[in-house]
Amino acid sequence: MSLLVVGSVALDSIQTPAATRERVLGGSAVHFSYAASFFGPVRLVGVVGEDWPGEHTALLNGRKIDTSGLHVVKGGKTFYWKGKYHSNMNDRDTLEVHLNVFGDFKPALSEDFRRSDYLFLANASPVTQLKTLEQMTGPKLVVADTMDLWITEQHDELMQLFRKLDGLVLNDSEAKLLTGEENLVAAGHKVRAMGPKFVVIKKGEHGAMFFAEHEMYVLPAYPTARLVDPTGAGDSFAGGMMGYLAAKNDFDPQSLKEAMAYGIVIASFNVEDFSLDRLKGIDRGELDLRMERYKKMLSF
Amino acid sequence: MSLLVVGSVALDSIQTPAATRERVLGGSAVHFSYAASFFGPVRLVGVVGEDWPGEHTALLNGRKIDTSGLHVVKGGKTFYWKGKYHSNMNDRDTLEVHLNVFGDFKPALSEDFRRSDYLFLANASPVTQLKTLEQMTGPKLVVADTMDLWITEQHDELMQLFRKLDGLVLNDSEAKLLTGEENLVAAGHKVRAMGPKFVVIKKGEHGAMFFAEHEMYVLPAYPTARLVDPTGAGDSFAGGMMGYLAAKNDFDPQSLKEAMAYGIVIASFNVEDFSLDRLKGIDRGELDLRMERYKKMLSF
Repeated sequence: MSLLVVGSVALDSIQTPAATRERVLGGSAVHFSYAASFFGPVRLVGVVGEDWPGEHTALLNGRKIDTSGLHVVKGGKTFYWKGKYHSNMNDRDTLEVHLNVFGDFKPALSEDFRRSDYLFLANASPVTQLKTLEQMTGPKLVVADTMDLWITEQHDELMQLFRKLDGLVLNDSEAKLLTGEENLVAAGHKVRAMGPKFVVIKKGEHGAMFFAEHEMYVLPAYPTARLVDPTGAGDSFAGGMMGYLAAKNDFDPQSLKEAMAYGIVIASFNVEDFSLDRLKGIDRGELDLRMERYKKMLSF
Repeated sequence: MSLLVVGSVALDSIQTPAATRERVLGGSAVHFSYAASFFGPVRLVGVVGEDWPGEHTALLNGRKIDTSGLHVVKGGKTFYWKGKYHSNMNDRDTLEVHLNVFGDFKPALSEDFRRSDYLFLANASPVTQLKTLEQMTGPKLVVADTMDLWITEQHDELMQLFRKLDGLVLNDSEAKLLTGEENLVAAGHKVRAMGPKFVVIKKGEHGAMFFAEHEMYVLPAYPTARLVDPTGAGDSFAGGMMGYLAAKNDFDPQSLKEAMAYGIVIASFNVEDFSLDRLKGIDRGELDLRMERYKKMLSF
């Protein structure tokens, strides 16, 4: 089934205790779509500036990612983020952020894209996410991400969005901020009561939690000692999850759990190098092999 | 098979954001032995003062816990700890600590106890743990706990102990302190290289990790929204783990993983009320029911 992602496309400069990379390919829609492309074609909608290297578009196109919705703004500059990770590789400081053309991002979906079956609203303002959703002609499954900025700055619009979602994906710190609950189990249930049919709380190195009306579970992260760069881990998780669901064209409880597991396994590859470098080096076979190891790890 | 635990027996005063309890039954050997008693008899060695309420001994005896090794020091006072949990229920401040009779704890094992098959050296100084181990006449499995104080204050003795252990159980922060590694996967392997045949890193609400020569895995905590008091969670985890192993009298990889899972499930009950109050209210049936739910949660 067709899968559409609408979100940021960026150039990232990243500092970790071990290394530094300048202006590498990044952004929520990029990490998402590359991860999802292991399962089938993906449609990407985003915006970049004239500084956008054509090789990035070529890379995405080579992965069955339809970039016809990637708008290039003449005279504009691509969204730029510069960040520095602390020694724990979990906390990070934003050193620079220039929204550039992403600041005026008003997604206009083509007729074809509007009819997509699966939609992921990657991190953007809830107003933008709502305006994107309004253009759709009856998607089967709509899942969104959000961030702390929108929780504090556009709370009403976010609540409006939540009531229209099938699923919501957010970080542990965002779930706490949103609910005032320190206990993540309680927080997850509270977020779900705000509207989404299911909620996924991402816990970084500690995995992810799933909340639906009749089901709640937690799955650990796939353990890796090769943690190079966590940037995009959450988006690649969502990409793996949505890519699997769209390919299977099912989102019953069992499929959702399998999708969560695939998301976790893909994210574990994503963090093993900068940008998409690790994912670029693996094929579906390697992905499935790690998935088998993950399943075995959790069975006793 | 016989299971022996040597460690602290205490009276705890606990403050959480929701409630306060004064001088409740606590201590590493207490939480351990009560948890282990779900699987079979336990032998406890510890020391208390004259202020020790006899009802606590009666409670333990009622659970097939042999307290003949619980030494009562006339004129002495029981180890007392007073702590306050932060709103996240993870960080805590020690408000008061009086070692009292535990400060001079020199375990002297009876002839019978020396022949125990399974030994757990609960948190005490490595010197005390070594002197306890020397009295044993060939246990099948020796597992120990430790804490940050000994890592910084008695490092050489700790290293000496490690080389004599089958298993070591420690917290995530202790594993980082011990190895200087922020990545827990890397830290776990490094700790194992210090001597223990296997290492378990406890991550609190995020579960536990297991490291052996040919195996490494992580299991999540059993999620509970009813987090009342985390005190003793790690000791009840170890008690569930060792109790299961001793009852099965096997510690092959499969048994160790099942034991880890039982430890995790028992710890999830332990934190649902103060002291032993939650564990006192369940039977083996309820424990096994939650174990089944835990298994199901991890299968897909």
